[in-house]
Amino acid sequence: MALVPWACCPWLVLLCACAWGNPKPVDLQTKDVRNCSSSPQYLPVTVVNTTEKLTALRQQMHTHNLSAYIIPDTDAHMSEYIGEHDKRLAWITGFTGSAGTAVVTMGKAGLWTDSRYWTQAEREMDCNWELHKEVGTAPIVNWLLTEIPARGHVGFDPLLFSIASWESYEMAFRGSDRELVSIISNLVDLVWESERPPAPSQPIYVLQETFTGSTWQEKVSSIRSQMQKHHKAPTALLLSALDETAWLFNLRSSDIPYNPFFYSYTLLTDSSIRLFVNKSRFNSETLQYLNSSCTGSMCVQLEDYSQVHDSIQAYASGAVRIWIGMTYTTYGLYKVIPKEKLVADTYSPVMVTKAVKNNKEQALLRASHVRDAVAMIRYLVWLEKNVPKGIVDEFSGAELLDKFRGEEEFSSGPSFKTISASGLNAALAHYSPTKEFHRKLSSDEMYLLDSGGQYWDGTTDITRTVHWGTPSAFQKEAYTRVLIGNIDLSRLVFPAAISGRVIEAFARRALWNVGLNYGHGTGHGIGNFLCVHEWPVGFQSSSITMGKGMFTSIAPLCLPEPGYYQDGEFGIRLEDVALVVEAKTKYPGTYLTFEVVSLVPYDKNLIDVNLLSPEQLQYLNHYYQTIREKVGPELQRRQLLEELAWLQQHTEPLSAKAPHITSLFSLLAVSTLVILS
Amino acid sequence: MALVPWACCPWLVLLCACAWGNPKPVDLQTKDVRNCSSSPQYLPVTVVNTTEKLTALRQQMHTHNLSAYIIPDTDAHMSEYIGEHDKRLAWITGFTGSAGTAVVTMGKAGLWTDSRYWTQAEREMDCNWELHKEVGTAPIVNWLLTEIPARGHVGFDPLLFSIASWESYEMAFRGSDRELVSIISNLVDLVWESERPPAPSQPIYVLQETFTGSTWQEKVSSIRSQMQKHHKAPTALLLSALDETAWLFNLRSSDIPYNPFFYSYTLLTDSSIRLFVNKSRFNSETLQYLNSSCTGSMCVQLEDYSQVHDSIQAYASGAVRIWIGMTYTTYGLYKVIPKEKLVADTYSPVMVTKAVKNNKEQALLRASHVRDAVAMIRYLVWLEKNVPKGIVDEFSGAELLDKFRGEEEFSSGPSFKTISASGLNAALAHYSPTKEFHRKLSSDEMYLLDSGGQYWDGTTDITRTVHWGTPSAFQKEAYTRVLIGNIDLSRLVFPAAISGRVIEAFARRALWNVGLNYGHGTGHGIGNFLCVHEWPVGFQSSSITMGKGMFTSIAPLCLPEPGYYQDGEFGIRLEDVALVVEAKTKYPGTYLTFEVVSLVPYDKNLIDVNLLSPEQLQYLNHYYQTIREKVGPELQRRQLLEELAWLQQHTEPLSAKAPHITSLFSLLAVSTLVILS
Repeated sequence: MALVPWACCPWLVLLCACAWGNPKPVDLQTKDVRNCSSSPQYLPVTVVNTTEKLTALRQQMHTHNLSAYIIPDTDAHMSEYIGEHDKRLAWITGFTGSAGTAVVTMGKAGLWTDSRYWTQAEREMDCNWELHKEVGTAPIVNWLLTEIPARGHVGFDPLLFSIASWESYEMAFRGSDRELVSIISNLVDLVWESERPPAPSQPIYVLQETFTGSTWQEKVSSIRSQMQKHHKAPTALLLSALDETAWLFNLRSSDIPYNPFFYSYTLLTDSSIRLFVNKSRFNSETLQYLNSSCTGSMCVQLEDYSQVHDSIQAYASGAVRIWIGMTYTTYGLYKVIPKEKLVADTYSPVMVTKAVKNNKEQALLRASHVRDAVAMIRYLVWLEKNVPKGIVDEFSGAELLDKFRGEEEFSSGPSFKTISASGLNAALAHYSPTKEFHRKLSSDEMYLLDSGGQYWDGTTDITRTVHWGTPSAFQKEAYTRVLIGNIDLSRLVFPAAISGRVIEAFARRALWNVGLNYGHGTGHGIGNFLCVHEWPVGFQSSSITMGKGMFTSIAPLCLPEPGYYQDGEFGIRLEDVALVVEAKTKYPGTYLTFEVVSLVPYDKNLIDVNLLSPEQLQYLNHYYQTIREKVGPELQRRQLLEELAWLQQHTEPLSAKAPHITSLFSLLAVSTLVILS
Repeated sequence: MALVPWACCPWLVLLCACAWGNPKPVDLQTKDVRNCSSSPQYLPVTVVNTTEKLTALRQQMHTHNLSAYIIPDTDAHMSEYIGEHDKRLAWITGFTGSAGTAVVTMGKAGLWTDSRYWTQAEREMDCNWELHKEVGTAPIVNWLLTEIPARGHVGFDPLLFSIASWESYEMAFRGSDRELVSIISNLVDLVWESERPPAPSQPIYVLQETFTGSTWQEKVSSIRSQMQKHHKAPTALLLSALDETAWLFNLRSSDIPYNPFFYSYTLLTDSSIRLFVNKSRFNSETLQYLNSSCTGSMCVQLEDYSQVHDSIQAYASGAVRIWIGMTYTTYGLYKVIPKEKLVADTYSPVMVTKAVKNNKEQALLRASHVRDAVAMIRYLVWLEKNVPKGIVDEFSGAELLDKFRGEEEFSSGPSFKTISASGLNAALAHYSPTKEFHRKLSSDEMYLLDSGGQYWDGTTDITRTVHWGTPSAFQKEAYTRVLIGNIDLSRLVFPAAISGRVIEAFARRALWNVGLNYGHGTGHGIGNFLCVHEWPVGFQSSSITMGKGMFTSIAPLCLPEPGYYQDGEFGIRLEDVALVVEAKTKYPGTYLTFEVVSLVPYDKNLIDVNLLSPEQLQYLNHYYQTIREKVGPELQRRQLLEELAWLQQHTEPLSAKAPHITSLFSLLAVSTLVILS
C-alpha cells in the first residue's frame, strides 16, 4: 500500500501532483451530492442530519465559554487507522473519509479535507456544514479569525492533538487576540453519549514465542539499557503509539481495523513497568505472563487506561526525567511534563529499535511473504482464466483475494482494505470498491491490485498492475518506466545510515526522463504482525536513516492525468517489500542495498524490454530466479500445479532485442552469402 | 570550490567521512606542534602568546559578572569569509583557521574546532588554550556545565550569534541553572582596542549598468511588491547579509576577502529605504545615484552603520511588521523585534529573488565563464609543458593562474583562495599552498586545481584534476566514477521546484557502487560578481527548491583514505557551474535540467571510457562540442593558437571500445577468410 494518509503523518507532504498536472479525482461512483444553494436544498439519502448533534455540542461549548471547537480525525495515540469508538469527526459531521478536520463555531460548522474526499463529503454532510477544500492549520485559523470575536476561546481536546499540531495552531493564533484552550473532557464525547460505540473489550492475547523476535523481558532490558546510555539520563520512557506497547510486550488484540493493537500506554521506568490498559481484557495466563502480581522492575503493573493523564502528572512531580517520542505523544500528555523534566526525541527508542528486525524477525517476515505470494499467485491465475469471461468485478475479486490470503497459514486478515481497481479507477488514490460501487474487470483495461495480509509472522503489502489484453504503447512505456524505478532503487548500493529521502529519486528518474512523475511517497516501513505502514522507516524526510535489518516497501507509480491521453486513464503501481541488507563492494566500506522479499512476478505483457538496460534486465531475471526458488517449492508442496506452471511461465528469463548484434549477424550472413555466391 | 565551511552554514552537516572510513587529514607541512604536557612545555615559534589578552578579557568578564564568555568565528552578517576587523577568534586564541568557537572561563580557555584544523590549532595556540576536537553546541555546553558554578552567567555578543545558534545554546542550557547573557558590547573588542584593524574605509562604488540585471529602483520595486503580496503584510524588510545589500543597490566594495561587499544593513520599508553604512565611503556621484538627499519612497536615506541596532529597535516600537530571513539575521537584531511584529522566513525575499538570474544576468555569467575558461586553458597548457621539467610547485602554479585570470577582461581577483594541490595534498579539505609550504607538481602525481574568479559580470568556480603521466588503474577508476557522477547529475531531468537534496545522490551512485563516497556537499549557488558560495541555491536540505535561472555548481569528488591503497593518496574533484534550464520532455510538464556553463575539458588521460554508458559518452561528447564552439572562437580571436590546438586535441570525441561488436567483426573477418580459403 503505497499511499499514506497525511492525517497520521503531518510531516508527509503528499503533493498530490501526479504525472503531468494536478490530480482531478474522478468520482466514478455517483454524482448524487448535496446542493445547499438550491431552493429547497437538495440532500442525497446518504447525508446524515447533524442539527441536533450540533445544538448539543454548542451547548457544551457555551458551558465551557468557547467560541469555537476543533475536532480532528485522530485518536489519542496518533493512530493511522482509528477504531469506531474514536470516530468523533464522522459522528459529528456525517463525513466518513479518513482525513479531515471539523471546526464548529456558535453559528457555523466547517470541514476541511483534501481533494480525495470532496465528493464524498458532499454526499455525506448536510447543509449545516461548509466544505473547505483546503488542508493545514493556516486556512482553518484564517477562517476562525473572521468567524469568532476578539478574545474568543478556541477549544480542543489535548489528547487528540499531536505536539506539532498544537504548536502549529499556537503559532498561527499568536498575537491574534484569540486563545487556544485545552479541555481535557472531549466535548463531542459528552454529547455522543449512549450512541457512542463502547471501548473494545475483547481479549488481549500473547503472541506465541514462535512468532516473536525476543521476549518482552529482553525488549524491556534492551530499552532500559538505552535509557541508561542516554546523555540526559531519563528515569522513564512514555510510550503512546499503540504498536509500541504491542511490540514491547508481544501482545496483540483487534481494537483498530487492520491493526492488531489494543488501547494502551506504557510508562517504563528504571525500576517499574506500568501498563495502562483495560485490565479486564487479560486472562489469568496473560496476567501471569506479564508478572502482574508483583511490583519489581520486571513486573508489569497494570493501571486503568483512563488513568494515564493523572498518573503521568503524578510521576512527573517527582525528581524524574521522562523520555518521549515527540511524533506520537499527544499534547495532552506532553503538557503535564515540566520542560526541564522532558527528554524529547523525534521517535521513542522503541520506535527506533522496532524498526530494525533481528534475524528471527527477518526470517519470520520472509516466510510470510512466501505464503503471501502463494495467495497472490492463486488469485492472478484465477483472474487470468476468469476475467475474459466477464464474470469478475473489483469487489468480488478483492473478496476472493482476501479469502485466498485467509486460507494461508497464520493468517489474521488483510493488513489494509484491498485496493482492487480496474481501468480509470486505478488512477484514484485510496480507491476501494464496495459492494454497491465497483467496476467489472476486463481484458481491455489495466487492473491495479494493492493489498496485503496480517500473519502472525509478518505483515505484507504488495502491488501489481496487470493487463490481460493488448496494452497501448503508452501503457507499456509507463509500466516499464515504473518497473525501472522499482529496479533502480532496489538494486542501488548506498552508504549505511543514509536518509531514504536522498535516494528515492532513483525510483523516479525513468519517469522524469519523459515528463512523468508521481506525487506520493516511494515507500514505507512495515512490521511483524504490526502496522502495514510502520514508521519511521521509509523514504520521507522525517524517516530515520537506513540500516541493515529494516524492511521498507518500494513503490513507484504512475497516474497519468485522466483525459489527457485517450488511453491515459489508468494507474500503475508496482510495490514490493524489501529488506535492507549489506552490499559487498569492490572497495571496503559499510554499504547497503535492498533485497526484495515480495515474490510475485511482474506482468510481462506490460514490459517493453527494450527500455531496460542490460543491468536492469540482469537484475530482473535474477529476481525471477529467486521467485522460482522460493515460491516454486511451496506451490509444489501444496500441489498447486496450475499455479506452479503459471509461475514458471511468468518468470521465464527476459532478453532484450539487440539490434546491433542482430544487424551484425545479418551482415555476416549477407557477406557470407555474397562471398559464397 | 566544493567545500563549504560550516561556520557560515550551521545547518550544513559536512559529514567529513570521505571514501571508506573517517578522514585522517595528513599534515604535510610540519609536525612542529606545541607540547603542553612536557616539562618545560614546548611551544613552536608559530604560537601566539595570549596570556595578557586573556587577563584583560577576564577583567571585562568580571566587570560584567560573567563566569564564561563565548567567542564565535563569525561577523555580524553571518558572512562566510570575514574581514580582518572581525577576526576576534584569531586575535584572542592565536588560531587562524576559519572555523571554530572559543570559550573563556575565569580559569580556563578552550577552542572547539573540526579535524581540518587540529594540527593548525596545535601550532598556533599557546598552552593557555585547551583544544577540543569536537564541534556543535552540546560539547561546549557540557564542558561549561562542569567548569562554571551553578547560577553562573555565560556571556555572548548577540550580533555574532545567528538565531539558530542562540536557540541551540538556549535549549542546551535550559534547566541547567546557568544563564545565557547577551551583552551588546563585544568584550574582545573592548580589550583588542588599538591593536584592532580599523573598519574598512575604501570607497563603495556603483557597478556599471552593463553588468547588472536590473537597476536598484527596479529591484526595490520588485521586493516591495513581494512585501505587499505577503499574507502577513510586513511594513519593512531587514537585510543583514552583506550580499543582499550589495545586490539590491548594485553597489560593491572590498571589505571581505574574495567578496566584493561592504559592511551594511538595509531596512526597506513600504515608504522609505534606509541604508546603514559608513557614509563617508560614498562619493557625490554615488550619493546622487542613491537619491540620498531626499526622503521619499525611492530615496536612499543613509544612516550610520553603528546605528542599526537602535534604529531597528525604534522602528519596531511602532505599528509595524518586520520581515527577516532567519538564517542571516543575528540574534542581536532579532531580539529587538517583538514576536508579534516579526515576519520570519528562512531566507529574505532578496535572497530568494537574487537566486534566480534573469536573462541578462545569465548572459553575463555565461560570458564570464568563457573568459574564465581561457585563463584555465592557458594555465593547463603551460602546466603540460612545464610540469615535466620539474619547475612548477603548487604555490607558484596558483600564482600564475591568478595572474592569467587577472589578465582577463573585467577581472576583479580570485573568488576564493586557489586550491592548488599535488598528490596527497589534494586529499586535504581546504588545502591551499603557501609560499613556505607547498609541494612540487610532478608527472607522477595527480594535481587538483579548484579555483575561481570574480569578474564584473560574474563569479566563477571550477575544479579540474589532471595527471600528466601514467595514472594507476585505481586513479582512473576513481576519476571516471567522479566524472560519471558529474555527468549523471548534469544530464538529469527532474521536475521543477524539487529540492536539490533529493537529486544529489545521482552524483554519487557510480562511486557508491564500488564502495566509494565523499563527505561533502555536491554543489552550491554562485553569484554575479557576488558570493562564490551563494545561498540558498544548492543540494543541501536547507537549499530552496530548484528553479529555472538558478546557477549551481556540480562538484562530486573522491578522497580515498590515505594509506589504504599504495596509490590511494590523492583527491579528485570535478566541479562545474551549471544553469538550471527547462527540459523538453516527451510528455508535457514543467521539467528542468542543467546546462553546464563551465567550459574546460576533463583530462582524457584519466578517463576509462569503458566505464561510461553510451548515454554518458554521448553527453560528454556533446559537452566537448559546446566547449569547442564557445571557447574556440575566443582563443582564435586572441590568437592563442597553441591553446586552441590544445583545446581541439582535448575535446576530440571519445568512443567506447565495444567488445561485442569488435568480436563480431573479428568473427566476420574470420568466417570470411574461412569461406575464402
